[in-house]
Amino acid sequence: MITKRITISEERDVTLTAYLFEGGWEFPNILKRPAVLILPGGGYQYCSDREADPVAFAYLKAGYQAIILRYSVNDNAVWPNQLNDYEQAMELIKEHADEWNIFTDKIVVVGFSAGGHLAACAATMAKNRPVAAVLGYPVIKGDCAKSYCPTAPDVIEAVDRNTCPCFVFATRTDNVVPIQNTLDMMQALNRYDIAFESHIYGYGSHGSSIATSEVRAQGVEICSRIPQWVDNSIEWLKDMIGDFDKKAMSQPVCNRYANPNRAPYLSVDCTIGYLMELEESASVLRPVLDSIWSPMSYEDMAGNIDNMKLKEILGYSGRDEDIVRLDQKLCLIPNSKVN
Amino acid sequence: MITKRITISEERDVTLTAYLFEGGWEFPNILKRPAVLILPGGGYQYCSDREADPVAFAYLKAGYQAIILRYSVNDNAVWPNQLNDYEQAMELIKEHADEWNIFTDKIVVVGFSAGGHLAACAATMAKNRPVAAVLGYPVIKGDCAKSYCPTAPDVIEAVDRNTCPCFVFATRTDNVVPIQNTLDMMQALNRYDIAFESHIYGYGSHGSSIATSEVRAQGVEICSRIPQWVDNSIEWLKDMIGDFDKKAMSQPVCNRYANPNRAPYLSVDCTIGYLMELEESASVLRPVLDSIWSPMSYEDMAGNIDNMKLKEILGYSGRDEDIVRLDQKLCLIPNSKVN
Amino acid sequence: MITKRITISEERDVTLTAYLFEGGWEFPNILKRPAVLILPGGGYQYCSDREADPVAFAYLKAGYQAIILRYSVNDNAVWPNQLNDYEQAMELIKEHADEWNIFTDKIVVVGFSAGGHLAACAATMAKNRPVAAVLGYPVIKGDCAKSYCPTAPDVIEAVDRNTCPCFVFATRTDNVVPIQNTLDMMQALNRYDIAFESHIYGYGSHGSSIATSEVRAQGVEICSRIPQWVDNSIEWLKDMIGDFDKKAMSQPVCNRYANPNRAPYLSVDCTIGYLMELEESASVLRPVLDSIWSPMSYEDMAGNIDNMKLKEILGYSGRDEDIVRLDQKLCLIPNSKVN
Amino acid sequence: MITKRITISEERDVTLTAYLFEGGWEFPNILKRPAVLILPGGGYQYCSDREADPVAFAYLKAGYQAIILRYSVNDNAVWPNQLNDYEQAMELIKEHADEWNIFTDKIVVVGFSAGGHLAACAATMAKNRPVAAVLGYPVIKGDCAKSYCPTAPDVIEAVDRNTCPCFVFATRTDNVVPIQNTLDMMQALNRYDIAFESHIYGYGSHGSSIATSEVRAQGVEICSRIPQWVDNSIEWLKDMIGDFDKKAMSQPVCNRYANPNRAPYLSVDCTIGYLMELEESASVLRPVLDSIWSPMSYEDMAGNIDNMKLKEILGYSGRDEDIVRLDQKLCLIPNSKVN
Repeated sequence: MITKRITISEERDVTLTAYLFEGGWEFPNILKRPAVLILPGGGYQYCSDREADPVAFAYLKAGYQAIILRYSVNDNAVWPNQLNDYEQAMELIKEHADEWNIFTDKIVVVGFSAGGHLAACAATMAKNRPVAAVLGYPVIKGDCAKSYCPTAPDVIEAVDRNTCPCFVFATRTDNVVPIQNTLDMMQALNRYDIAFESHIYGYGSHGSSIATSEVRAQGVEICSRIPQWVDNSIEWLKDMIGDFDKKAMSQPVCNRYANPNRAPYLSVDCTIGYLMELEESASVLRPVLDSIWSPMSYEDMAGNIDNMKLKEILGYSGRDEDIVRLDQKLCLIPNSKVN
Repeated sequence: MITKRITISEERDVTLTAYLFEGGWEFPNILKRPAVLILPGGGYQYCSDREADPVAFAYLKAGYQAIILRYSVNDNAVWPNQLNDYEQAMELIKEHADEWNIFTDKIVVVGFSAGGHLAACAATMAKNRPVAAVLGYPVIKGDCAKSYCPTAPDVIEAVDRNTCPCFVFATRTDNVVPIQNTLDMMQALNRYDIAFESHIYGYGSHGSSIATSEVRAQGVEICSRIPQWVDNSIEWLKDMIGDFDKKAMSQPVCNRYANPNRAPYLSVDCTIGYLMELEESASVLRPVLDSIWSPMSYEDMAGNIDNMKLKEILGYSGRDEDIVRLDQKLCLIPNSKVN
Repeated sequence: MITKRITISEERDVTLTAYLFEGGWEFPNILKRPAVLILPGGGYQYCSDREADPVAFAYLKAGYQAIILRYSVNDNAVWPNQLNDYEQAMELIKEHADEWNIFTDKIVVVGFSAGGHLAACAATMAKNRPVAAVLGYPVIKGDCAKSYCPTAPDVIEAVDRNTCPCFVFATRTDNVVPIQNTLDMMQALNRYDIAFESHIYGYGSHGSSIATSEVRAQGVEICSRIPQWVDNSIEWLKDMIGDFDKKAMSQPVCNRYANPNRAPYLSVDCTIGYLMELEESASVLRPVLDSIWSPMSYEDMAGNIDNMKLKEILGYSGRDEDIVRLDQKLCLIPNSKVN
Repeated sequence: MITKRITISEERDVTLTAYLFEGGWEFPNILKRPAVLILPGGGYQYCSDREADPVAFAYLKAGYQAIILRYSVNDNAVWPNQLNDYEQAMELIKEHADEWNIFTDKIVVVGFSAGGHLAACAATMAKNRPVAAVLGYPVIKGDCAKSYCPTAPDVIEAVDRNTCPCFVFATRTDNVVPIQNTLDMMQALNRYDIAFESHIYGYGSHGSSIATSEVRAQGVEICSRIPQWVDNSIEWLKDMIGDFDKKAMSQPVCNRYANPNRAPYLSVDCTIGYLMELEESASVLRPVLDSIWSPMSYEDMAGNIDNMKLKEILGYSGRDEDIVRLDQKLCLIPNSKVN
């Protein structure tokens, strides 16, 4: 492993520290690697070492290149300095991607507390979007963010269809950053059907980082489940961005959106509830559905099946032959609810 | 182990099946056990065997007595039949508590899908409240509940300070019961400061039950984290209701409420933000806080510390001697925001 | 689940207790199940309840039918009473296999301490062999066995090519049954190339059973790894006997023997070291090997590759086309070392 | 983290690479750390990168300083070059212990395959002994070792009372280094009552290293349990050398020896079987034991209790008051079986 240190701003003491595994002939299938860009917490007053190297070690172990951004804090924590630091970091990583053996489309941002706020801003507002974000007990809401940095933006209102998938964890009894931040983030992600996984643990201090005994020795109380977030986030990332495989990285098994209800054109992958809300598609489907459930009608079934994809319904009903035929028709219908 | 089967209603085919470990001289410290009352799912149309015995086995393994309630379904699923079935089940368990070796104050309800709706109703509305509820991909919201049983109530509006602690899990891509149900439940629990733990897994079919290969063989797709809920719920229950220990059950390590902000009188365990909002307590605290942070004032610190308990703040500031003195004063002040 | 209790010998108080999951229409692919026959410990003086029901619950949870044999103990512990009890239990299970939904070729024996001795005897001596044995801190050696039952046999000398695969665990500091028992069993299994997995944990009391807090509350001290044996044994059994799959049980992924060095005829799956020891096969192989490694010879490579299968060596050397040709020749050569 | 690279021998290309976490004010209780000295495998022909950095990351994550020794290989693999390299590495680490924040009495050696041979030699033969050794699919036996390095020594015959505690893992189907190596090592460790933990997994290729998907992508087949060794070794090390705690490192909970049967003087911590074998102690104990078990004698009980400590027996028998009295007598008796 080699270490690269780059000063992004001498004046604001902003630095990038890259821990880079070199691979070699014994790793013939791994020409490039995904990377994590780590944003430690510290209430925008400092960048905590507890959420820097230990986090890097966890992802290095999993095969990631690990890069720590120590962004603008304290007097320099004037928005958008922090976000600009992030953008510069991403641009530097992309510039060095060949030299550093990094897939530019597999850069994950991992942030904690105030660094979680910055990570969530990266996920929702940045020009250089990460492929996914891991948010540890993050600051999300405007009022909470402003208590640490008066100019910091609210994340909730920035969530939209372009937000990257998020893994979020927190502890219910966090007395520094209330979990209302995490709960509202989940609501916003779900509103836009953005892939996420979340774990809210029963109790534990703020700032548990990777929750090893080394970190806990500093007085962090945790419940037994908290250390799971590390491996869980690594497994979730495999689902979202693929994993090392015999020949190359495997394909992701999970999409950003649960269904294409917001795609420009309709399809059999839209949910039946959505398709039946639109007049054009409903008129195509009604005869088929009526024949499936006769003498009951779609309206009798609706409550139980509205969130299933049309394709699933047809499959369960033994109408596989209708799937292709209907998809061809639906593909021609613009999704009028999407602007 | 012995099995007891009791018919609660022959007409509505409501039955209680109790799997009871008998203990014996080799378990001298375990005179009684906690119990789970299992409410299988099935859309209020049937009681799924996939969420009955396998769930019982998981909690039996952990030392619980396991009791399955097959409640009113299909034509008999007319509210409040199901809740009445639950109340009768709880009363039967309490009646037999000595014979069945069960702690009457450690009965946990575990429900899935529609059974999760019933469990959540038990947690919020029942006369016989469980000590805690485990809710698997539960139906919570009124509109969702009514699609399975038109007379079923909304759970969200029933959540209040008397709701029992809840462990909730679901999968983001559930296409039968949308996770909006789970998200709204978490918001409601947090609004009333009720202890909870939640896990929303990245993807997986509805109805994963305990997610063993036996259950998955029926076509359930899951992500790798889902099976964790079983052991996680058992560990969380140890935190909430205690664990088997050398002499007896240990004390719980986690309270229902994170702080006593809603208790009838104030105390040093209230959060500083709450105490400073009330004029009577603010006037007591202001001189102390001003002397701690001088020349800064409480207002300068507020954003970062409002959710910490006064006791913690005094401890961090080396003012341990003030804790007792201030508590004596605060204990005399009625909590005017609580009716 | 239903419970069946059968008295095998009223005089010697030998009983069979079967906990049987009934399945039903929701388990369409699971017409039959594997089973565990549980043999509790107790120094041949009694059958411990701590190693009966809790163990049954663990395997029931995994989809096994669980059957407990309470065999001859105390004054009735006169060999071969215990083994006869076992044989009768197996015959009863096979007789009821259709009624009880059990695969007769997937019955696993699980024994602890003295019950581990009985399980190991089943694995090595019984007429009705189990498909695999799970041995928890077992009594194995003759002298140790005789201290509990003077007529009990030594297991080590009974191990042979027909011994079933074994999963063995124990704790190094066991002060009741020394781990020398387990170590010698592993040596014997390896001598005959019988599939096994073993875990010797750093420290822990004798009699940890499934090591839940319920069991530990009786004064059992364990190290943190001991509870792993339960899930590890279940995963190992999946490797050895198959797992529940979408249509039926999957095929095992692990063979009883690492290689066919002791089969009646030779093949390319024999290890190269073994084939080169036998004159007939060595003369077939030498020209091929010499051409591969020229100017080095087989003897130069031997130390590093002797345990690899000939097929592997040819594959690594790009001689795939030789595999079929050589296998045809080797298949005609009787394995002269095997009687 | 900083990296230090030291060339031990330019001629033989022997290097030390130290990855050192710097700590800082946020780790006030962790002034020094334990360290792992990693010895990669490679058949004494090369030092595998697959068993270098990835292993370092795993232990760095756990709070260890991680140091990789690339020792003499290929033409330079002439014994005792490799052991000398190790000794120099240890001396360098001790010299830099203050600068590198390392406890000199908490240096663990971690070796794989041929590196496992070198680690086992360190554990048994070195001047600078490690506090514990983690041995992954190690080469142990003389014949196996000599196939990789004709001058390499046998480890088995070097095991004695001064051997350090060992954690050993391997896979049964390893076709490069037969598990007979591991089995014999366990026998030797047990013969001298040296603390160990061992895991032999059901199947898997040689060279699984930390068994992440990164490593497996190179064609390594493993069973599901293999990745456990990493965390298990870390937990075992906590038991053997202590863990990070609120004020400093905690005390170990496990001793090197299960009992002091080989100490210079006797005590109540010796096993009863051992004490009754020696005439001097037997004559002290006999009256007490006879009074406990009357009308039965020690001989009637011996088989079941010989491995228990006298202190345990007296405790179970309610003779706590005899413990101190007998210990005072036993402490005066030289352990005549020990030279």
